Amino acid sequence: MAVQRFNLNDPEGGLVRALAAGMETRLFWGKHAMLSVLTCAPNAAGESHHHEEEQWAVVIEGAGVLVVGPEELDVGPGDVCHIPAGTPHNFIAGPAGARLLDIFSPPRAAYTRSDGGGFAAR
Amino acid sequence: MAVQRFNLNDPEGGLVRALAAGMETRLFWGKHAMLSVLTCAPNAAGESHHHEEEQWAVVIEGAGVLVVGPEELDVGPGDVCHIPAGTPHNFIAGPAGARLLDIFSPPRAAYTRSDGGGFAAR
Repeated sequence: MAVQRFNLNDPEGGLVRALAAGMETRLFWGKHAMLSVLTCAPNAAGESHHHEEEQWAVVIEGAGVLVVGPEELDVGPGDVCHIPAGTPHNFIAGPAGARLLDIFSPPRAAYTRSDGGGFAAR
Repeated sequence: MAVQRFNLNDPEGGLVRALAAGMETRLFWGKHAMLSVLTCAPNAAGESHHHEEEQWAVVIEGAGVLVVGPEELDVGPGDVCHIPAGTPHNFIAGPAGARLLDIFSPPRAAYTRSDGGGFAAR
């Protein structure tokens, strides 16, 4: 079986989910981890949410505010933040937008449900 | 408790392990996933190895050849490859060196053992 591979800068590939207005992600996953390449339009803002999966957020480019529990973190390129399981969090992109690599472990089941898990499939 | 955070471009922080000549990594982990920021000197070459943890390799900068099972993959900035559990793999950096973000799930236990798990601690 061919190695599963993609490029962070390739706008195609993966399972596409719309997470919020101006926030769309492409999903790739194995058995234990899921990678989500999230593109945020300028000033796009997600709603606070939480889930059982552990998450790490990696800022690829752009900037914004990552809210994790009671903390509001200004983040920019190369910043990596840990979001423990069950912790409320959300991201608000800055005026130039942002792209993030989110890592979920285990893979976030809601995203891969055939009905889209409540997220709009493209 | 403060959010665990770091920056991919910060040369400090994390648990340091020397993986091979010219290959040193900084490790950060939660409950289900471990992030490894690997710096490879020009032409540094790891030995083929395998482990029970699933791995994803993300090329931050530079280039090289990632061997996964029978495949030899030329990789460069933004490339992401999946290394399923138990699959032999190794990385050979190109002449300009490389930096990779490796993701392990579950966290790779050998790295966090107090004796360094066979890897030299700094």
